[in-house]
Amino acid sequence: MLEQTQGLHVVAQTPFLEDGAVDFGSIDTLSAFYYGHGAQGLTVLGVSGEAQKLTVDETIAVAARYVAAANGHRIIAGVSHPNLATLVEVTAQVMAEGADAVMICPPRGICTDEDLIRYFEAVYERIGDVPTVLQDFPASSGVVMSVPAIDRLLVAFPQIAVIKEEDTPSPTKITRLRAELSRPVKILTGNNGQFLVQEMERGADGPMAGFSYPEMLSGVYDLMNEGRRAEAHDLFNRYLPLLKHEAQGQWGIAIRKEMMRRRGALQSNALRGPGPRLTETDLAELDYLVSRMDLPRD
Amino acid sequence: MLEQTQGLHVVAQTPFLEDGAVDFGSIDTLSAFYYGHGAQGLTVLGVSGEAQKLTVDETIAVAARYVAAANGHRIIAGVSHPNLATLVEVTAQVMAEGADAVMICPPRGICTDEDLIRYFEAVYERIGDVPTVLQDFPASSGVVMSVPAIDRLLVAFPQIAVIKEEDTPSPTKITRLRAELSRPVKILTGNNGQFLVQEMERGADGPMAGFSYPEMLSGVYDLMNEGRRAEAHDLFNRYLPLLKHEAQGQWGIAIRKEMMRRRGALQSNALRGPGPRLTETDLAELDYLVSRMDLPRD
Amino acid sequence: MLEQTQGLHVVAQTPFLEDGAVDFGSIDTLSAFYYGHGAQGLTVLGVSGEAQKLTVDETIAVAARYVAAANGHRIIAGVSHPNLATLVEVTAQVMAEGADAVMICPPRGICTDEDLIRYFEAVYERIGDVPTVLQDFPASSGVVMSVPAIDRLLVAFPQIAVIKEEDTPSPTKITRLRAELSRPVKILTGNNGQFLVQEMERGADGPMAGFSYPEMLSGVYDLMNEGRRAEAHDLFNRYLPLLKHEAQGQWGIAIRKEMMRRRGALQSNALRGPGPRLTETDLAELDYLVSRMDLPRD
Amino acid sequence: MLEQTQGLHVVAQTPFLEDGAVDFGSIDTLSAFYYGHGAQGLTVLGVSGEAQKLTVDETIAVAARYVAAANGHRIIAGVSHPNLATLVEVTAQVMAEGADAVMICPPRGICTDEDLIRYFEAVYERIGDVPTVLQDFPASSGVVMSVPAIDRLLVAFPQIAVIKEEDTPSPTKITRLRAELSRPVKILTGNNGQFLVQEMERGADGPMAGFSYPEMLSGVYDLMNEGRRAEAHDLFNRYLPLLKHEAQGQWGIAIRKEMMRRRGALQSNALRGPGPRLTETDLAELDYLVSRMDLPRD
Repeated sequence: MLEQTQGLHVVAQTPFLEDGAVDFGSIDTLSAFYYGHGAQGLTVLGVSGEAQKLTVDETIAVAARYVAAANGHRIIAGVSHPNLATLVEVTAQVMAEGADAVMICPPRGICTDEDLIRYFEAVYERIGDVPTVLQDFPASSGVVMSVPAIDRLLVAFPQIAVIKEEDTPSPTKITRLRAELSRPVKILTGNNGQFLVQEMERGADGPMAGFSYPEMLSGVYDLMNEGRRAEAHDLFNRYLPLLKHEAQGQWGIAIRKEMMRRRGALQSNALRGPGPRLTETDLAELDYLVSRMDLPRD
Repeated sequence: MLEQTQGLHVVAQTPFLEDGAVDFGSIDTLSAFYYGHGAQGLTVLGVSGEAQKLTVDETIAVAARYVAAANGHRIIAGVSHPNLATLVEVTAQVMAEGADAVMICPPRGICTDEDLIRYFEAVYERIGDVPTVLQDFPASSGVVMSVPAIDRLLVAFPQIAVIKEEDTPSPTKITRLRAELSRPVKILTGNNGQFLVQEMERGADGPMAGFSYPEMLSGVYDLMNEGRRAEAHDLFNRYLPLLKHEAQGQWGIAIRKEMMRRRGALQSNALRGPGPRLTETDLAELDYLVSRMDLPRD
Repeated sequence: MLEQTQGLHVVAQTPFLEDGAVDFGSIDTLSAFYYGHGAQGLTVLGVSGEAQKLTVDETIAVAARYVAAANGHRIIAGVSHPNLATLVEVTAQVMAEGADAVMICPPRGICTDEDLIRYFEAVYERIGDVPTVLQDFPASSGVVMSVPAIDRLLVAFPQIAVIKEEDTPSPTKITRLRAELSRPVKILTGNNGQFLVQEMERGADGPMAGFSYPEMLSGVYDLMNEGRRAEAHDLFNRYLPLLKHEAQGQWGIAIRKEMMRRRGALQSNALRGPGPRLTETDLAELDYLVSRMDLPRD
Repeated sequence: MLEQTQGLHVVAQTPFLEDGAVDFGSIDTLSAFYYGHGAQGLTVLGVSGEAQKLTVDETIAVAARYVAAANGHRIIAGVSHPNLATLVEVTAQVMAEGADAVMICPPRGICTDEDLIRYFEAVYERIGDVPTVLQDFPASSGVVMSVPAIDRLLVAFPQIAVIKEEDTPSPTKITRLRAELSRPVKILTGNNGQFLVQEMERGADGPMAGFSYPEMLSGVYDLMNEGRRAEAHDLFNRYLPLLKHEAQGQWGIAIRKEMMRRRGALQSNALRGPGPRLTETDLAELDYLVSRMDLPRD
């Protein structure tokens, strides 16, 4: 049940081969890597999963492969799309393939609270009772949702069981959500996990983010839940230089893929083009950054 | 040959039934209507053709039906898409179905001249030698292309044979394009034809626009070419109240569809939802507006 | 009283000399021209009044000169500014100079209904009981206000007595405003007067727009009020080619200034730079456009 | 000479009293604090200096006070403004007050490389030979400048002696700038110092950023210049949790002011309203965050 979502849900990468083809084999190794480092589930086909570079057929195939490798874990499929017909088509297909839920971020051009309500009315008229993660990510979508507007959505649409909160500053927004929402909802947090400790302290139910050391994200979650706040901070701070280094847009995703390649989780650090490719300078810089950190040996 | 494009190329509507399904039968009657009123070709799947509401499969099917009904006229298919993989897939399929060319507008997020060149490098690496109409439409795309930047594109990419110019004010931009471009290119103009007379006087090769009386657009084109400037102005001015009334975004498209329904060109004025539906007030207002104009009887 | 606003309120130009200095003398002739052609009042320092090119001191001086020439007519001063401190300072000064009201459009960055309410709370905490025209002009401001959001503003802030409505399509929005607002408010309309006939039919109280033949705007208003709908349409349509020609952004403002220069209302067609300057081509094109219209002799 | 700029230039806060008035006295203590912790100069009236909340008169007064307290250090005044007339007026006045240079970021609406060149042509026609820092900050301004476009500006305008580089990812952009620019220019970096180590390794000449422990910023700069790379990384990493915590927009600025208040650098943590005010939750969270760090005692 999506209503019980908590703990680490990794925003999964889509692995590519050097020639730009989807690397389906690495979906299996990535899945094992994520689950082996504490993920309760995955959010596939998000922005940092390069969903915006896949055809519809590839989108379905990637989701299906992640479902096949889920091994009892929850799979949430990002289906946000400027074209509502495509959102509807992809939702039907990923749910048919076995996804547990979809994640939807309203598209650019939704401006007022009324627009927002009407957008989701149109969505749910067409997709029906599909469990949904509502993504609040204005830096990417251009759509700002106030706390009262989010509450109106929650009241109107029981399908929404989780909020992925990545408006900024996220800590103060989470405090408001926890104080003002009129029904219970799980809140997971993104922004590459950069504010995870504060978000947990403010009432979040876990991270929904990507990082090449997912064990830090799950570890912070566990420590916070056990009331071991100091240890949570210390664990977080230990990884912070790399966490921040990966939080640099698409180039940061390439860094993350490189780190996970080194850890054996996938074959290539390639993003699908057009997009950044890591240079020798980038790689040497990463080596040095990592050398000053006290990371565990794999 | 796309290089010889001139005269009216109607930006074609996509007809829908009341329930939102594509009305393929009306594609045939619309095609006959457009060609019967002076269209040399059609641009299908543009913004006012509601392309952004179709699935990929519907997109191909609409293009194929327009090709089947082309009867020797040129079919240009809009393939602009924020997702490059989808643009590539749709381009391949519409060209396989028999389209003569594609129209491409660079997507939101292309900011600098360098971005622009790189975007089209990425496009043409993937689609190859497909004849192209470059659409310059910042009000819709958010991408502004300076005259020098357009010239760089023309020099780099021989595939671009036509510019659809709808930056504003279009008259002064056309004057600059005609003065500064380093190779010949056809320029057709949009913005619902609202500035057609001035655009023709400044060097445009014809309208690429939609209007429920396409005979006005082709008529102005013919008169201007014959040097009958006063008659061109007078013809244009006669239709201007309705032309302007249709130039009101998606609601204006509904008005245009209603007028073409009345003229027997299609079955329903419906836009695919979500989108505006005409009310009794809208229809009565349209009746009165038309009653004060001296339109020809069909 | 601002609550009784109706009839033509011209959005006044700011006249400049060729060297870019404000042409204060022409403010007097422009004022006489506007009032002589039916204006009940003026809105000074709007977007088409080039307010965004004036220093604060110039802003106050222009408003003061328009007040001095008002001769019993209403002067509304545009004070919209991204900087709230400047808005407050300018409001205090223009009201001290004798303006009757201010016009405020919320600045870019106001996204949600809650933002909107909070913005105006901050404004009215600082400016107090200043009679206000609320400008709804998303194409310029980037801020979209839904009808329910506008109603919340009206309920919260009694200072708002007039809405300048220029969202598009304006006719349908005016119908909604008239049906849904919970207290009476005057609605004047902009967008260069391009949809004036329909706006009046939908319940507007008059135009708040600029045009080089303000007698058309006031004439349409009067005819509509007298129930002479057919004559109103015919008058509007007669001027439409020029009205549309002037509705081309800042370049259109230069055209408008040129027409008013020819009519003796101001000395120069100059905009303050940087901005478009009319070329010989532009002027010859204008001559021909006007030659095909049946305009009254001055 | 601006051409010799290097080392830490703090982006200075504007201190306010609880009632929103400018706290001029704290400008003196802040100045001493900044210089005492390694600042070679200050950049006053930047975005994080809340320049967008000051009237023109306040702007000049703040700059003048910082100049009076400069004690031989360089004062760079931010003068970016959407209104060119205001930019010109403020530039003249801050230079007359004794500022050493201005910082200019092109305003929203500048889209193409041609626009960019023309904008600065208009600027320099009006302000003349004023030494300039060019700010490249698309996340705030909405204007993206490619490396070739920046180079065109450098070639055309000798006034530009420094680039404040805060496009993202900044490390790769600095590498390109250092490889492709056709004349020497100093590059200082912003984004709250979050990528300072990498930026220095890529060729930056120092930080131009704000942080409540400016000694970290100057310390990293010195260590990098002395070739003590490992120590630079370690110093940076030690402060990173707080550095990141302050990098949360205007709320982060409130955090920064609170930290500097605790360090005795200014009287109040207040931002000028409307804007965030720190809550008890915010303050307790900050206490705990700081408690897990090994910060020096003041």
